[in-house]
Parts: sequence; C-alpha cells; structure tokens
Amino acid sequence: MSTRIAHAGLRRKVMSARDAAALIRPGQNVGMSGFTGAGYPKAVPQALAALMGEHRARGEDFRIGVWTGASTAPELDGALAEADGIELRLPYQSDPVSRAKINAGTMEYIDVHLSHVAQMVWEGFLGHLDVALVEVSGITEDGDLIPSSSVGNNKTWIDQADAVILEVNSWQPLELDGMHDIYYGTALPPHRQPIMITEPGDRIGVPRFRCPPEKVVAVVETHAPDRNSAFKDPDAESRAIAAHFIEFLDREVASGRIPPGLLPLQSGVGNIANAVLAGLADSGRTGLTAYTEVLQDGMLDLLESGTITLASATAFSLSPAGIERFNDNVAFFRDRIVLRPQEISNHPEVIRRLGVIASNGMIEADIYGNVNSTHVMGSRIQNGIGGSGDFARNAYISTFVTPSTAKGGALSCIVPMVSHVDHTEHDVDVVITEQGLADLRGLAPRRRAARIIEQCAHPAYRPMLHDYLERATAGAWGRHTPHLLGEALSWHQRYIETGTMALT
Amino acid sequence: MSTRIAHAGLRRKVMSARDAAALIRPGQNVGMSGFTGAGYPKAVPQALAALMGEHRARGEDFRIGVWTGASTAPELDGALAEADGIELRLPYQSDPVSRAKINAGTMEYIDVHLSHVAQMVWEGFLGHLDVALVEVSGITEDGDLIPSSSVGNNKTWIDQADAVILEVNSWQPLELDGMHDIYYGTALPPHRQPIMITEPGDRIGVPRFRCPPEKVVAVVETHAPDRNSAFKDPDAESRAIAAHFIEFLDREVASGRIPPGLLPLQSGVGNIANAVLAGLADSGRTGLTAYTEVLQDGMLDLLESGTITLASATAFSLSPAGIERFNDNVAFFRDRIVLRPQEISNHPEVIRRLGVIASNGMIEADIYGNVNSTHVMGSRIQNGIGGSGDFARNAYISTFVTPSTAKGGALSCIVPMVSHVDHTEHDVDVVITEQGLADLRGLAPRRRAARIIEQCAHPAYRPMLHDYLERATAGAWGRHTPHLLGEALSWHQRYIETGTMALT
Ligand SMILES: CC(C)(COP(=O)(O)OP(=O)(O)OC[C@H]1O[C@@H](n2cnc3c(N)ncnc32)[C@H](O)[C@@H]1OP(=O)(O)O)[C@@H](O)C(=O)NCCC(=O)NCCS
Ligand SMILES: CC(C)(COP(=O)(O)OP(=O)(O)OC[C@H]1O[C@@H](n2cnc3c(N)ncnc32)[C@H](O)[C@@H]1OP(=O)(O)O)[C@@H](O)C(=O)NCCC(=O)NCCS
Repeated sequence: MSTRIAHAGLRRKVMSARDAAALIRPGQNVGMSGFTGAGYPKAVPQALAALMGEHRARGEDFRIGVWTGASTAPELDGALAEADGIELRLPYQSDPVSRAKINAGTMEYIDVHLSHVAQMVWEGFLGHLDVALVEVSGITEDGDLIPSSSVGNNKTWIDQADAVILEVNSWQPLELDGMHDIYYGTALPPHRQPIMITEPGDRIGVPRFRCPPEKVVAVVETHAPDRNSAFKDPDAESRAIAAHFIEFLDREVASGRIPPGLLPLQSGVGNIANAVLAGLADSGRTGLTAYTEVLQDGMLDLLESGTITLASATAFSLSPAGIERFNDNVAFFRDRIVLRPQEISNHPEVIRRLGVIASNGMIEADIYGNVNSTHVMGSRIQNGIGGSGDFARNAYISTFVTPSTAKGGALSCIVPMVSHVDHTEHDVDVVITEQGLADLRGLAPRRRAARIIEQCAHPAYRPMLHDYLERATAGAWGRHTPHLLGEALSWHQRYIETGTMALT
Repeated sequence: MSTRIAHAGLRRKVMSARDAAALIRPGQNVGMSGFTGAGYPKAVPQALAALMGEHRARGEDFRIGVWTGASTAPELDGALAEADGIELRLPYQSDPVSRAKINAGTMEYIDVHLSHVAQMVWEGFLGHLDVALVEVSGITEDGDLIPSSSVGNNKTWIDQADAVILEVNSWQPLELDGMHDIYYGTALPPHRQPIMITEPGDRIGVPRFRCPPEKVVAVVETHAPDRNSAFKDPDAESRAIAAHFIEFLDREVASGRIPPGLLPLQSGVGNIANAVLAGLADSGRTGLTAYTEVLQDGMLDLLESGTITLASATAFSLSPAGIERFNDNVAFFRDRIVLRPQEISNHPEVIRRLGVIASNGMIEADIYGNVNSTHVMGSRIQNGIGGSGDFARNAYISTFVTPSTAKGGALSCIVPMVSHVDHTEHDVDVVITEQGLADLRGLAPRRRAARIIEQCAHPAYRPMLHDYLERATAGAWGRHTPHLLGEALSWHQRYIETGTMALT
C-alpha cells in the first residue's frame, strides 16, 4: 500500500474504485474535486459510470448531481455524461458530451459565479450534499489531507458532505505539500470576518484539509496523470490581441494610472490567454504578480524569468510538458505559487482590494459593450460564466478578448445586441480583438458604440454595424442606448437560417 | 452671518450664490453633493443655470459635466437641464427634464455602479474634476465640514477637485453633527486595506469632512429645505408584493437558512420599498438592522418601534412630514443611524460580509430571471442602475420586485427576453410581483422559466409566456436557455408599434 496514506485508520479503509463507487446511490449529490484537468478523481467516476451502465442494462435509472470546482476531464465529466449519469451539473463545465446533452435538454446545468458556489452550499440553496469525492496527494499521520493540483471547492465538499471518498494519487508530486493555503475562516453571516489578504502571496490559512477520519468511507489508491491539453503555439490573431493588451498596459503605466509593477494580473484560460502570457515575457517588465484562477504553462516561463514573482490561483492547468517542467524545478515554484480555495481566489473582496487587472475570453460583445461569455445564439451553452464575473465586476480594469470573427468569418463577434448577457456594459472597461482595442472607460453609450465598431469589429462587418447604429440612433424609441428591437437580434437569426451573419 | 461658519478664514469667503457660480467655467466638471432630494446644493446650481441662460442669450455655449452622489432635485438637475447646461451627467439621475434630453440624444449620460464612482474618479477614468460644490450643515473652527443630510461622494469631490465651493445650509438640523462616519482609509491599489466593518453600526471613520481651507474658493449661505416627495399610502399591489416578501423571510427563518433577527436589509427607493417597510412594522420582528442606501419615512417608524435597531445608509430620503418627525426626535435617531460615503454604503466587500438581504425595483424581468432596471424598450433610460448591482451581486439573498404589469396592463413586466440586462440570472435569486414570489435559487434555466411564469406573470400574459417557452424549447438552436431570436423581443416591438404587448 502507498506510503502516502500515513493514517492507520484510513489505511484500513482502502478499497477498489468499484467498491468505493458502489457507496454512491442514485439521486445523491456528489461534490467532486477538479478544476480544469487538474486534481479531479481519476478512478471512482469511471467505476461509477460502469455501475451506472449496469443499472441501466437492468432497466434502472442511475443519475446523480455532480458538483465540482470547475471543468474537469473526460474521465469524469465525459464518462458520467456518456453513461447518462448526470441529473444536474454545476457550476462550470467544458465537456463536449455534457455540452451536447445540456443543449439537447436532457441534462440540467446550473451556471454559477465560481465565488458563489461554496457559500450557496453552506447556505443550503443548492440542496443537500451527500458525498465528497476528492483527490488528494497524501494523508498525514494525523489524518490531514494533502491537497493535489487543484483546490477548488474541496474544503467545502469535505466539510459539508455526509461521507467522504478519497482518491490518493501517487502520481501527484509530494512537493505539492505546503503550497496550498486553505482558509478556514469563512462563515455564514452574521459571523463573517474580513479576509486579511492584502498581497497576492499572503497566506492566511493552513496547508492541508482537515477531515474527521470517521467521515471517510473509502480510500482509493491511484497513480494517474492530470490531463490538460497542450497549447497550440499562439497564432497571428492571438499574438495581435496580446500585443494590443500589452501596449494598453504600457500606456496605462506611462499615464501614471497604474504602477510600473502593474497590478495583480488575472487571465482566463485558452490560447489567447497563453499568448498574453507569452507577450508579457517579452515585455521587459519584472516583479509582476498574478491573482488568478489557473496557472497555465506560460506562467511557468514568467516565474522562471522573474517577470512574475508570485502567482496565486486555485489550480494548475499544465500540459504534459508543463507538468514535467514543474516537476523538474518544483522547489523553485513552491516559493512562488499559492493555491487557494476558489472562494478565495475569486473572492470579490480580495479582487477589488488587490485591484486586479482582468482579462477574459468571450463569445461576443455588442456595440455598447455588453458581453456574452456563455450562450452561442443566446440559447446554446458553451461552458459557463466561471469566474469571469467575479473578476470583471471587481477588477481595477476589466478587459475582454476575442477574435473579431468566428467560424471562418461567418460570425461577427461584435454584434448589434448580444444574444445573452453575462457581463453588462458596467463591467466591461476594454474590448480587444485582433483589429484593435476599445477603451470604453468614461464613455456614454453611443460613444462606446462608435469606438467598439471602429477599433474592434472586422472590416467586413464594420459598415453593417455603423449602418445599424446610425439607423438606430435615428429611429429608436430612446436615443440613450439606441436599438431597433425588430432587428437587434436579426444577425443571429440570419446565422441560424443561412449559416452566416454576413449579407450576401 | 451664520454662526455655522466658525472658521475665520472661511467666513471671509462668504459670497452670493451668483458670485460663487461665476467661478465655474464652461467645460468644467463639477462634483456636486446630493443623493435623492437630500443634501444637494440649493442655491449655486440655480444661479449657475441663470448664468448659463445669459451666456446662451449672447450666443455662447455654457455646459458642464455634472457628477453627483445619485439623483438630486429639480433645483439642481432640473434647473441645469432646462438651461441646457449639462454636457455629461453621471452616475444616476431621475429628473424628468434630464431624462427627456438624454433620450432625445442631446445630453450625455454615464450610468455607473454607485460603489464604483469614487474609485473611478481617483483612478482618473472619468477625466479631471475641477470643482466640488457641496452642501454642508456647518464649518467648525478648525475648518472641518459638518456633512448635511446625505454623504454620497462628497469626500471624494472635496479631495479630488481643484477648488471647493461650500453651501452652508442653516435649515439642516445641527444635530446631524456626529451621525456621519466618513472613512478616510480608502486608497488606490496596491495600497488598499480591508474595510473593517463587521456590523451595520460599526464606525470606522470620523464625523466630518477634512478640507484644506485654502482649497475653498467660495462659501454660500442658504436656508432651504431638502426636497423629497411624500409617499402615497401603499396601494393593494405594493401591499401584496410586501406580503410575499415578508412571508418569504418568515419561511427562510423557519427553515433555518437565516437567523430570526434576519440579516441586514437593503431596500431600493419608492412606493414598494415603503410598503415593505410598513409590512415589516406589522411583522412582529424586533432587533433587525438595515445596511442600505437611503432612509425613507418608513424607516423612522421601524426605528421608533424597535423593529429595526440600527440603520446604516448614505442619505436620508424623507418627505416633509418625515423631516419633521426626524427633527422632533433627533436625539433618539442619532444613536440608531450611521450615514456613510456611498463607496462604503455600497461596498461589495461589506455587503457580502454582512450578508445583506437586498430588495430592488425593476422595469422588467425575463422568464430566465434576467432583470432590466434601467432601459424602457431597451433604449430609453429611466433612471440608472444606481446601487442595485452592488447589492444584487453581493447580497446573501437578492430579490427584485415589480407589479406584474405596467401602463394599465399594456406592458407585461415578465417578458420572454428583457430588452436590456442590468442584472443577470446569476444575481437574481427571487422575483416578486403582486401575483406571487418565484424562488429561483438552485434552478436550471427552464425550471426558472416555468416558475417565474407560474408565480409572477399576470394571468393575462401567462398563456403567451407558456406558449413562447414551449415553442422555444422545441425549436431553439440550443435547449439550455431556449429562445427564438426572431421573436424574443417581439413583445417590445409590438408595444412600440401598437401600444400594447397583448395580442388583440
Ligand atoms: C468564451 C469562451 C468560450 C471563449 O473561449 P475560447 O477558447 O477562446 O473559444 P473559441 O474561440 O475556441 O470558441 C469556442 C466556440 O465558440 C464558437 N464561437 C466563438 N465566437 C462565437 C460567436 N461570436 N458566436 C457564436 N459562436 C462563437 C467557436 O466557433 C467555438 O465553437 P466550436 O466549439 O464549435 O469550434 C471561454 O473564454 C469561456 O468559456 N469563458 C467563460 C468563462 C471564463 O471566462 N473563464 C475565465 C476564467 S475566470
Ligand atoms: C426600476 C425603477 C425605475 C422602478 O421604480 P418605480 O418607482 O417602482 O417605477 P414605476 O412603476 O413608477 O415605473 C417607472 C416608469 O417605468 C414604466 N415601466 C414600468 N414597468 C415597465 C415595463 N415593464 N416596461 C416599460 N416601462 C415600464 C412605468 O410605466 C413608469 O413610466 P412613467 O414614468 O412613464 O409613468 C427603479 O426602481 C429604479 O430606478 N431602479 C434602478 C436603481 C435602483 O435599483 N436603485 C435602488 C437603490 S440600490
């Protein structure tokens, strides 16, 4: 048995993934670890999916509620969705099988601000949590749990569930121990206290999860890698977006609006975010910090080069190559990385206090600066809002990035009216596409529209947008935020009907 | 000269409103006091409006940027707008003359989360502040300024403006001195510190504004009342909404989700809010608190009866009768009321920590729980978002209230898709109309839709909404949040074209 299970009582609870999965009953809510492809349970979800299949073969339904940190990996979301085993999913996912079922109307999904999840569970707003299924990298003699490569909502799952199933993954580097900062000071009102983080690197908690050993009903040993896909090298579009963003930061520093060491950076996941990180590496700046959700490969470069000296997050999101680099230099990274529960990495209080500069991806923005991050054609969920609202609302400067078109130009990502709103004009300071950057701060709606169209829209769609704005300004019911309601969503409708937003 | 101006140097700067107004130049940005009809400057804006008229008669343009706490009164917003003297207005207004000009496209307006205003000014995002024009109730020997009946952004205006014009209003009760809590601990990042409020009544600042006397360019004496309109007695609709809200609170207490003393209450302005306060008075609860923006007449009853023991706000919003009652019992109220800068009354950090129960008005909600608080027919601004976003996003429970119809039934306030989004589904826990209450917590979109239609929509519109939801669920591009984009805003378009959303 693995030496990673140092607690005698818990060693006696070691069992197979299948036996552990059998402890989960149909209809239960299960809080699972996992935030991007990091730190999710590797064995029990698949065993559970197999059990679900056997039930189904006997004509019995077996579905559960799956709560996580954020998205996970095919072995969790994919396997359970394939098995038709997810009744309700929250708070964020990006799995293609799940997405298809959600959009077919056969799986329920609740999309939640990531900073709100833990409190909603404590508050009892989401129903009862039956089981916590959490990957850890080890168990101490005292029964404390050494977190693995993501923290997410694990503290809350362990505290709130009736029963805890642990996966001890010996693939995770032992050196993770000590990197985490698990804050046990949260409470329900009227007992809440200030969260005393004033710098991204401040530690206010303990390195390990507490868990009464008697709550643990199963321990499963695994040795399996995290799974995050490798990044493509930034393409020309991503590099152009990154360049606009970095130029903007330079101008802000030059104008004295932000200090030369910038302010803590947050960036979403994906290729554009990675290109921004790469751009920062070439920017010549040093001594920066990050207060963000996930640490991608690009962050390792920045830490090694001293561009960034401290990064706080709730999870890693490293490619296989990134994981190797991390393991090769783990002592160095340990001193420069703090992993926190997502209620702290995304806490409005901390984000606003630190004055984070946020950069998040989007599906589309409208001419007035409202942003759709989640719903393709206003109805089909892509992933979910994730932490973007926590950061956008409370950031010092909130930026949103996207290529100006999608689907080979058939879609304009700048539209008259977004088909779904996740971030209102009030929470969107800057919009960036490969075409340029629109700084919307201090502009009334019609000025915002002119600037977004001019700076961000693709030239193929720019005249159509100007035309809409002009006609709306002339003919709208009100001219504060002019819209022609019969036409505002017609671009989307045209795409649905003809396959392109363009007028042919 | 009034004994309220105790500082010798400032006594020498007393002048007429006209002379003071003449110190304001065309094109300047002026930060004015005022939050609802309380604490706004009573004399200089009107003198300025007269000067503007004289300029215009000579063919010269005279417009300024007007920044305030929130809405003010006809003597400020009305007078300056009549004189065509406002180039740009922010962050909130409710003046009919201004509204007409904004919606005609002849006055610019920027609608800002009230908690964001002060930081945006410090950050330099809104341009330069030239003049602060602030009503106070007195000036001490040391030159400190005794605030009047609202605090708003006055601290920030005084600190940030090049020059300060004071109106000393001897109509304001002297006993206001000591009621305010002006917090001087805010800073720009990276220097921000926790805001150490853990109870609604905590005092963390000083009672008066600081202002270097040499910055003051004029002192004007006034003796003029605040101006807030009297409330109608709650009508049947408001009473029904209030009853649903209070029943809901009772159920939450009974279920153990909130304590019997509730959690600090926030409520918007207007007749429904007043009806809720009246309902609370009859609820038999005692020892409650409020952490809100404005204190209406109803709050005085609650304080006197002991229903509420402590109320924190940034302004009074009392009718003439309310002001009399306040003055008659001022010593009693002083101990139970704290007035704060709006960056603190509306601070996300504090609102989330205290776990505020929020209740705000709206124009319309859609079947998925997105809320429009600001734009009639998606384009015509009514007032502005005000503080509703600060509270809705960070509240423990965020409720929105409206009658189910407007304009005598020609408008349904529950629509397929809102024509403008101020609060997304994520920030709307509960929707209440006179028809009933829809508790949306923990529900996926289609379930939210069914519940809102069933509980909140007017029976005249319910079948049309059910029909839309059914057809959308069958025919939408995606079934997560089903919408028919060609039809989603057609109810609004029909109203514009025919004067009613109903199918005739
Ligand atoms: C918005 C978001 C999906 C963009 O991510 P991305 O990796 O840059 O997205 P892509 O460009 O690959 O686009 C994803 C899909 O949306 C489609 N898409 C992009 N723009 C679109 C538009 N304007 N209209 C319709 N579809 C669009 C793409 O074609 C692609 O579709 P496919 O899967 O069929 O190929 C992603 O940033 C997200 O999920 N954000 C919300 C959560 C968040 O911000 N988290 C950050 C951490 S706080
Ligand atoms: C939304 C808001 C305007 C409602 O206020 P109210 O006093 O209850 O509003 P009323 O019912 O008087 O409606 C105001 C106008 O909107 C119209 N209206 C109401 N519902 C409407 C709808 N669904 N569609 C179109 N117009 C509508 C009314 O007919 C009325 O028009 P009128 O001025 O031509 O008569 C108000 O709450 C607000 O400004 N909120 C935003 C700021 C905020 O929430 N502040 C709270 C403090 S944090």
